[in-house]
Amino acid sequence: MLFVVGTGPGDPDYLTVKALKTLERCRVVAGWPSVLKRLPLGGKEAVPLSYRNQEEALKRLAALSREADVCLAVHGDPAVSDWELMERVRALGVPFEVVSGVSSVNVALARLGLDLVQVVVVSQHAREPQPLPPAECGRHILVIPPPGGVQKVVEELRARGCEPVVLEDLTMPTERVAPPGEPSADLVIVAARCGSARPM
Amino acid sequence: MLFVVGTGPGDPDYLTVKALKTLERCRVVAGWPSVLKRLPLGGKEAVPLSYRNQEEALKRLAALSREADVCLAVHGDPAVSDWELMERVRALGVPFEVVSGVSSVNVALARLGLDLVQVVVVSQHAREPQPLPPAECGRHILVIPPPGGVQKVVEELRARGCEPVVLEDLTMPTERVAPPGEPSADLVIVAARCGSARPM
Repeated sequence: MLFVVGTGPGDPDYLTVKALKTLERCRVVAGWPSVLKRLPLGGKEAVPLSYRNQEEALKRLAALSREADVCLAVHGDPAVSDWELMERVRALGVPFEVVSGVSSVNVALARLGLDLVQVVVVSQHAREPQPLPPAECGRHILVIPPPGGVQKVVEELRARGCEPVVLEDLTMPTERVAPPGEPSADLVIVAARCGSARPM
Repeated sequence: MLFVVGTGPGDPDYLTVKALKTLERCRVVAGWPSVLKRLPLGGKEAVPLSYRNQEEALKRLAALSREADVCLAVHGDPAVSDWELMERVRALGVPFEVVSGVSSVNVALARLGLDLVQVVVVSQHAREPQPLPPAECGRHILVIPPPGGVQKVVEELRARGCEPVVLEDLTMPTERVAPPGEPSADLVIVAARCGSARPM
C-alpha cells in the first residue's frame, strides 16, 4: 500500500502517532529532502524527490506499493497546497491512503489569533498561481507565496488596503512573525488582516 | 502556563507527539467530555466542560495556570471553528500557548480529493451562523453545520445547484462519507462540490 503522510509544520514533535506508526511499517520513504531530514528513518530506504526526478521516483514508488508498504512523506498536511502532487499520486493508478497532518496554515492561524472560518487560503506556490479572492468574500487572506516571491504578494495585498504580516519557519527555533522585510526562510506564509473583513 | 491543545479529528492516533507531551506535563486537563474520554489522562484531574459551567471552569483553569501547567483540550485544531472558545480564552487575561492539531477539515479534504486552497470553510456551529460565501468566490464549500442542522445546510447548498456530501465521524470506525441522509453522528461536515468552482 502507498501511504501519503503529512509530517507537520516543521518541529518533529508535530508528527502524529499515526504518521510515526505508518513510517515505521514502510520499507521505503520518499519525500523532499527538507522533509526526509527530520524523520526517524532508521535503516529504511529514503528516496529524495527533486523537481527533476519526481515523476520517475513516484512511478517506482507505485510499483513497489503493489508488494510492500511504502510512503510518500510531505510537509504539513497533504490537503494543503499540495493538490498538484496529489494529482500526480492519483494518476499513478494504485490504491493509496492519506494520513492527514498538522498544516502550517493551522499554526499561522494560532499565531495570528484567527480562525480558518475567517480566512480564505490562497496558494501561489503552483504552476498556475491562484489569484487573490474577490473582496466580496469579506475574509482575511492567507497566501502561500511562490518560491522567492514574497515581495510581489506583499505589494498586491497592500494595493488592496490590507496590512500584510509574514510568518516564517513556524514551530521551528527560527520561527518569526513580522511585518514584511527580507524573508530569511523558505517556508513562508503571508497573512493580511483586511479592513473589509468583519471580525467574527 | 495554560496550553490550548488540539487533539485531532477523533482517532487518538491522530494526536501529535507535542500534544501527548503537553498533556503529560499538565496537572489539570479541561475539555468537552467527548474529548476527555479519548485522552490518556492517567491520574490527572479532569475538568469536563459543559455549555453551562464553561465560563466558571475556564476562570478556575486560568487561576491555576499562574502556578502550574494546565491544559484546555479541544477537538481537532483550536483554530478551526473554535473562535468563540478562543475569544473566551483570550478574555481570561493569562498567557497561553496553542498546540495546533489535525482538523477534521483536513481529513474531509483528503477523503474528497480536494485541497484547502480550492474551498471556503464555513461554520454554522456558532452563536451567529456564518452565511455561505458568495458565488464570486468560485470555490467548493465545506460547512460545519449547526448541531442537528444538517438538513437545512443541505437544502441551502442544493438551492445553489451544489451536490452535497455528508462526512461523519472522520477517522473513527464509524466514519461515513455519503450523500445526505439521516446523519447518525454528532461530528459532521457537509461538503459541496460546486459547478461554478473550477477544479484547479
